[in-house]
Amino acid sequence: MFCGNAMHKLLLLSSQTSIYRALIEEARLPDLVIESAATPHVNIIFGETGLIKDALASLPALAWVQSTSAGVEALMNPALRHDYLLTNARNVFGKLMSEYVFGYLLAHERRIFQRFADQQAKQWNHSNVGVLYGKTLGLLGVGSIGAEVARTAKFFDMTVRGYTKESETSSYVDKYFHGEDILKFARGLDYLVAVLPNTSGTRKIVDAALLAALPAHAVFINVGRGSAVDEAALIEAINQRRIAGAVLDVFEQEPVPQEHPFWTTPNLLMTFHTSAPSLPEDIAKIFIENYLLFNEGKPLKHQVDFERGY
Amino acid sequence: MFCGNAMHKLLLLSSQTSIYRALIEEARLPDLVIESAATPHVNIIFGETGLIKDALASLPALAWVQSTSAGVEALMNPALRHDYLLTNARNVFGKLMSEYVFGYLLAHERRIFQRFADQQAKQWNHSNVGVLYGKTLGLLGVGSIGAEVARTAKFFDMTVRGYTKESETSSYVDKYFHGEDILKFARGLDYLVAVLPNTSGTRKIVDAALLAALPAHAVFINVGRGSAVDEAALIEAINQRRIAGAVLDVFEQEPVPQEHPFWTTPNLLMTFHTSAPSLPEDIAKIFIENYLLFNEGKPLKHQVDFERGY
Repeated sequence: MFCGNAMHKLLLLSSQTSIYRALIEEARLPDLVIESAATPHVNIIFGETGLIKDALASLPALAWVQSTSAGVEALMNPALRHDYLLTNARNVFGKLMSEYVFGYLLAHERRIFQRFADQQAKQWNHSNVGVLYGKTLGLLGVGSIGAEVARTAKFFDMTVRGYTKESETSSYVDKYFHGEDILKFARGLDYLVAVLPNTSGTRKIVDAALLAALPAHAVFINVGRGSAVDEAALIEAINQRRIAGAVLDVFEQEPVPQEHPFWTTPNLLMTFHTSAPSLPEDIAKIFIENYLLFNEGKPLKHQVDFERGY
Repeated sequence: MFCGNAMHKLLLLSSQTSIYRALIEEARLPDLVIESAATPHVNIIFGETGLIKDALASLPALAWVQSTSAGVEALMNPALRHDYLLTNARNVFGKLMSEYVFGYLLAHERRIFQRFADQQAKQWNHSNVGVLYGKTLGLLGVGSIGAEVARTAKFFDMTVRGYTKESETSSYVDKYFHGEDILKFARGLDYLVAVLPNTSGTRKIVDAALLAALPAHAVFINVGRGSAVDEAALIEAINQRRIAGAVLDVFEQEPVPQEHPFWTTPNLLMTFHTSAPSLPEDIAKIFIENYLLFNEGKPLKHQVDFERGY
């Protein structure tokens, strides 16, 4: 039987629309039509928040938005409508971000850049390098990504501290800190890793005081959002050698302007918002799973709370 | 009661003798005297094989040698005596070598050197990087170190193949290969990691045929012994782009001579026999545990078979 009225109309808004279309068609989802333009009947969007925000106003029937990313702050602007279900992509990024974080932690301990300089100088440098084993890692934020970083740190026999608003959900965190205890959390850390979303509560949480509480050999890694960092304070802490260095994948302004001092700060490594490359297969799976729930009127996974912002 | 005759006489032969002496004294081992020179009563040596081999001839009472390293080929020379128990250091190196291997695997996938070049060129390079997740790693040799590398690869959701003489002891290896199946083992690998000891059976096992069986994007890592590699064949495979690169910590001749082409081969990274920095605390623990067994006449752990050479 053809149920014309029960059909859901999906709009794909992504730079990888053709890949997502193929993956979704392959799944042969029931009662679903993929629209090729923003028709008034569209009730579902699956895509990138930067493209979605501009389409919201023209879709009167919109009921559900599935984001391809974990961060959804582009949709938080109070001027935009918030009368639909918003779900984001979680879990898939944890593994990828963990690979990024531990790649850079190990590159630091193993002095991968210095060993390459030794090789270029034809210098047999037999001096000992560092190890992760036994070191202490502090997580600013322990959501699904932070929990995966914590799990990896425990695999490498590290001690893990977590700083959260109040949640204490990951068993891979050895000790939790909250509220005023942020400086206590920071003291003695070998590594500080920020995996915070962009909310009013996390803005510039990595400030001069927090950086001053870290040991001089500590390294800061940011894979969350650039807004969590007081960038001027970070540059000062590195230049005055109050911390050993930083690895930044996210920034207050992206792309980072040409004149920004980050590009040329020694012991500061930049990557370009690529710590968790989105793998369309993984992201499509989330949409497909959620679509089947949506079609049966069941609660969706990974719902975003517009109040909290994540 | 003072049991003069039951006393064991230990000789320490290491570049870190004072650290080992302190750690052993702290353990207050029964019936043990640490000698400060090679007296005829010495029945135990604990130290580095390169120093031990020269002392063997002058110690008539020698019963047991505990090596601080995993590799013991310096003591295998048929001209040397083999009438004592030889134990080596195992297990402690697995974690450290795993950190090394995964540091370089992740540096490769995440293009850490290229991202640094982008930063120096002030270029916001948003292109996707690679991940370990889902890749296939092949281990040449699956002893205690190989098993730990396998365990780490499984943690990162990789597929693991193992090539061994006959043993199939690690449950972290998905598929084992032996004997003639070495080219079958190599086909389709993303990473080939050699952790072989130096024995007659492993000499130049990484030859032109094995390298030709690897995919062009494969990377070779050697943390075992340099003798396992046909160095000329490796340089040719890299220069002709039949493999993507190599990371070498061990070499046929160490230190590598200044005129050796390795120093300047592109896509070949050298480190300097430092993949597993010996941590005296960990090595002393092995000696202490074995000493207590020795003193009670029980079988020692990590015994080396002079026939097999490991």
